[in-house]
Amino acid sequence: MIKAIGYAAKHSFSRLKPFEFERADAAADEVEIEVLFCGVCHSDIHQVKNEWSNTVYPCVPGHEVVGRVTRIGASVTSHAIGDLVGVGCMIDSCRHCSPCQTGKENYCEGPNSWLATYNGPMVPAAKAPDGHNHYGRDNTFGGFSSVLVVKQDFVLRIPDGLSPEAAAPILCAGVTTYSPLKHWGVTSGDKVGVIGMGGLGHMAVKLALAMGAEVTVFTSTKEKLQEALELGATGVIETDANALKPLQNSFDFILSTIPQKHDLNPFIPLLKRDRTLCVVGALEPMAGLDNQQLAFHRKSVAGSLIGSIADTQEVLDFCAAHTIAPDIEVIRIQDINDAFRKVENAEVRFRYVIDMSSLKLEEAA
Amino acid sequence: MIKAIGYAAKHSFSRLKPFEFERADAAADEVEIEVLFCGVCHSDIHQVKNEWSNTVYPCVPGHEVVGRVTRIGASVTSHAIGDLVGVGCMIDSCRHCSPCQTGKENYCEGPNSWLATYNGPMVPAAKAPDGHNHYGRDNTFGGFSSVLVVKQDFVLRIPDGLSPEAAAPILCAGVTTYSPLKHWGVTSGDKVGVIGMGGLGHMAVKLALAMGAEVTVFTSTKEKLQEALELGATGVIETDANALKPLQNSFDFILSTIPQKHDLNPFIPLLKRDRTLCVVGALEPMAGLDNQQLAFHRKSVAGSLIGSIADTQEVLDFCAAHTIAPDIEVIRIQDINDAFRKVENAEVRFRYVIDMSSLKLEEAA
Repeated sequence: MIKAIGYAAKHSFSRLKPFEFERADAAADEVEIEVLFCGVCHSDIHQVKNEWSNTVYPCVPGHEVVGRVTRIGASVTSHAIGDLVGVGCMIDSCRHCSPCQTGKENYCEGPNSWLATYNGPMVPAAKAPDGHNHYGRDNTFGGFSSVLVVKQDFVLRIPDGLSPEAAAPILCAGVTTYSPLKHWGVTSGDKVGVIGMGGLGHMAVKLALAMGAEVTVFTSTKEKLQEALELGATGVIETDANALKPLQNSFDFILSTIPQKHDLNPFIPLLKRDRTLCVVGALEPMAGLDNQQLAFHRKSVAGSLIGSIADTQEVLDFCAAHTIAPDIEVIRIQDINDAFRKVENAEVRFRYVIDMSSLKLEEAA
Repeated sequence: MIKAIGYAAKHSFSRLKPFEFERADAAADEVEIEVLFCGVCHSDIHQVKNEWSNTVYPCVPGHEVVGRVTRIGASVTSHAIGDLVGVGCMIDSCRHCSPCQTGKENYCEGPNSWLATYNGPMVPAAKAPDGHNHYGRDNTFGGFSSVLVVKQDFVLRIPDGLSPEAAAPILCAGVTTYSPLKHWGVTSGDKVGVIGMGGLGHMAVKLALAMGAEVTVFTSTKEKLQEALELGATGVIETDANALKPLQNSFDFILSTIPQKHDLNPFIPLLKRDRTLCVVGALEPMAGLDNQQLAFHRKSVAGSLIGSIADTQEVLDFCAAHTIAPDIEVIRIQDINDAFRKVENAEVRFRYVIDMSSLKLEEAA
């Protein structure tokens, strides 16, 4: 067993506090990783606070992990000791269903769906069709910790040209926005709308611009108009009807990155005929849609969930090739509770990344 | 001018009553049609009652019209006197926009959109971008009348093998369900769900079966379980969680035909990954969607509006070729108010069609 230390919540209204635990040693097909940096995602907060009513405690969040390989199992061929690697939202999947067999692990249809980096199998044993836990674990502990042990197939290569701290948010915010931009075929010359400009939204802007699209950000925060401009996009206040009107029927794709329930109806008219608005931010019930707006030009509203392992490697390589990276603020793990509050208040520009070397303070204590 | 007689509503809470009016003589590119039969669509009721807040009175509904050509303009080449013809929801469109130029008149993006058979144009002058009325008409009178005059390009051929009364509902209920089944690529062996089995729903069942699909009807009406079986489909009570559970992730396409606000959330889990639920029945605000259900298997909810003129001819020919037709009850125009009530109470099986020869009673009066 490996002694590990991390930051955990003990219940839905607790702050994150130091937490000691053990991890199993790396099996033959597994990689042991010393965690160097871990991004802070809004879903860490949703999970810690049990806002999806499925949190298993203690909860050690963190699924934007960059680290150094410190040990490999006997059959590991794709990673070597000393490699800079990444781990995103998934650390395993059923491997047998049709999505898994075709490289779409994020849409795994196995009895427990994919195994999340923290908070365990996506479908717990109690809710699985066969009542069993395919992975043998009811809870998993994420990247707000000193060490991870992960199946080699779910470990990503961090390409040269990406700093380890900037690479971290690409593992969730990056792939969550890249995957739908790719799936719905965004290409050079397209007009892309991004609703909300936080961790996900600002990555969507950078990625869509790098794909050659013209990008418009819809935001409720006045200061973000200028920030959108600085990223190379146009900013529009989402409640400004006069600004929205001339944009009707002009967008090839719109991505909503707002992390809670919101009204999509103002944005549907902006889509061209036969085009899609995809929601990646809010994994919860949304406000009702006016089907008149959808039907009159055969428009769609869709959801999308992170991305596959292949998509994740692709977006890491894409960011390195296009020299783009998230805008981050590096913090210490001791500041995590304050950071959570600022993420909820949209005060971060645009992603906190924890320098996990700060954990050493706890180990010394 | 042509003397015409029809049935009209004078205001939003009036019954339909006899109404005399005049139509302009057929222009060079127009066809004069003696109306023989006209279907009764739920949208006739929505419009008469001003449930979409856009009704112009007097309102003569009716957009499932079958009749006989009685006169043609000098340049008409596609129809001849004596032909059995049909008119659906549209009688003209802008002809210049990209959808019109590519044969998608139902998605016309011209300043007044398409010209509706009644209550036209779709976008009144006051709401048009240029403030003008492209068609020069603030109201049009539909098929609950003795005669129609229509541009030849918007007049359909009724193929041999379809009775005129059975052909009528194909012009709206038929094409409204055919167009999305075709657009989303329903093909032999697919599993198709149909929510609601009224005028639209029962046509969706017949069309999808003729395309080779396996069809399941979701209904709240117990008697319709047997009726679904008689059409060749399986019937499921839409609130029966035990019946829905084994159907999860199994449908290639689901079409909702319920003509008012309803909750789609119970049906999203039934779709396979990357598939679409399309709403054609309700042109109004819907209940909120849970994006968790959409995102977890990248599913979409879309709208679709009737179909193009080419789609309409195609579905008429498809019905003739597959010897399918709507199940209808033929009524007299004098019974229309009673019929409206029964449509609202879902008592019709499955479409009322008015025998317009009954109008002669009014002419004699």
